[in-house]
Amino acid sequence: MLSSPSGAGKSTLSRSLLEKDDNISMSVSMTTREPRPGEVDGVHYNFTSQDEFDALVAADGFLEYATVFENSYGTPAEPVEAALRNGKDVLFDIDWQGTQQLNQRVGADLVRIFILPPSKEELLNRLKSRAQDSDEVVAKRMAKANSEISHWAEYDYVIINDDLKAAEAELFTILNAERMKRARQSGLSDFVSELIKD
Amino acid sequence: MLSSPSGAGKSTLSRSLLEKDDNISMSVSMTTREPRPGEVDGVHYNFTSQDEFDALVAADGFLEYATVFENSYGTPAEPVEAALRNGKDVLFDIDWQGTQQLNQRVGADLVRIFILPPSKEELLNRLKSRAQDSDEVVAKRMAKANSEISHWAEYDYVIINDDLKAAEAELFTILNAERMKRARQSGLSDFVSELIKD
Repeated sequence: MLSSPSGAGKSTLSRSLLEKDDNISMSVSMTTREPRPGEVDGVHYNFTSQDEFDALVAADGFLEYATVFENSYGTPAEPVEAALRNGKDVLFDIDWQGTQQLNQRVGADLVRIFILPPSKEELLNRLKSRAQDSDEVVAKRMAKANSEISHWAEYDYVIINDDLKAAEAELFTILNAERMKRARQSGLSDFVSELIKD
Repeated sequence: MLSSPSGAGKSTLSRSLLEKDDNISMSVSMTTREPRPGEVDGVHYNFTSQDEFDALVAADGFLEYATVFENSYGTPAEPVEAALRNGKDVLFDIDWQGTQQLNQRVGADLVRIFILPPSKEELLNRLKSRAQDSDEVVAKRMAKANSEISHWAEYDYVIINDDLKAAEAELFTILNAERMKRARQSGLSDFVSELIKD
């Protein structure tokens, strides 16, 4: 799980992880909202109707879901469970509320990483530089970012994204170490049985 | 905590960790047994009398201790706690019994790594190659190694030491990732306060 406020570089880091590591795939959220220009169905979101969404909720088919401003968003369980069964890792890009729900459901196998911007000034710059925005719009984004940041202590790891290359290296270090966890190394039990048999 | 049977390469990996990382120091065990040829007081062990050892036990001054064949061995708490207070990491080279005791006392801050040999044949080779040993002596070592290996599932991480360079890299990956754990990054709370203040 990668969470962060907007402007902390999460999208760039996610893209880099997916490009450089063949064993991880992105979890694509499902949503009832309309696609925005440039958004591709199945890539940015799986776009669906409210009825279909509600049916999947009723069937306990989401790992987490939420409704924001009359639009529903959720993480369908089936593709995630299929990937894990095939020995693949899954990358989630969800906010702190989704992380809490997912953590309840997935438990110890979830690795929660929070990405922070290097300073308040830099965060403000990144939030501003997106377009020619009014002070009010920027202030709203900053308030939203602060609200997300306030949940940093619910994560296992924290990366301060000062330098993109360094942050990327840190992300891969965490990924590789977590893969060395005993509980994630499949076949270890058989390997040890061979090692100690008479 | 690095544990392993003899012959898995633990000493070489420990030495490399201590040489290449300035922020980690070795915990030196205290023992009541006589120094063997080549053993240096304060380096391989802190050699002490049974009376002094017992006094430290009575004062709850050990993180873990045990008596093996009438000799006592233990990890004095004070140097470890001093190192941690100074922001240093501490490397322990103790068997599974000591690891269990230490885990009870130190809890979540203890990172337990188990090193396995790549195969039964290789383990046997390494146990034999130490000297011109009788079959009986080698069989005893093998039994001791198997007994240690049987506790592999009590560790957080497992490294199979097939190639020394690769095993060393894995060890550093674990160390560096663990240092990125939120709970171990000092000053993070103040950093975030600055980030979200008005």
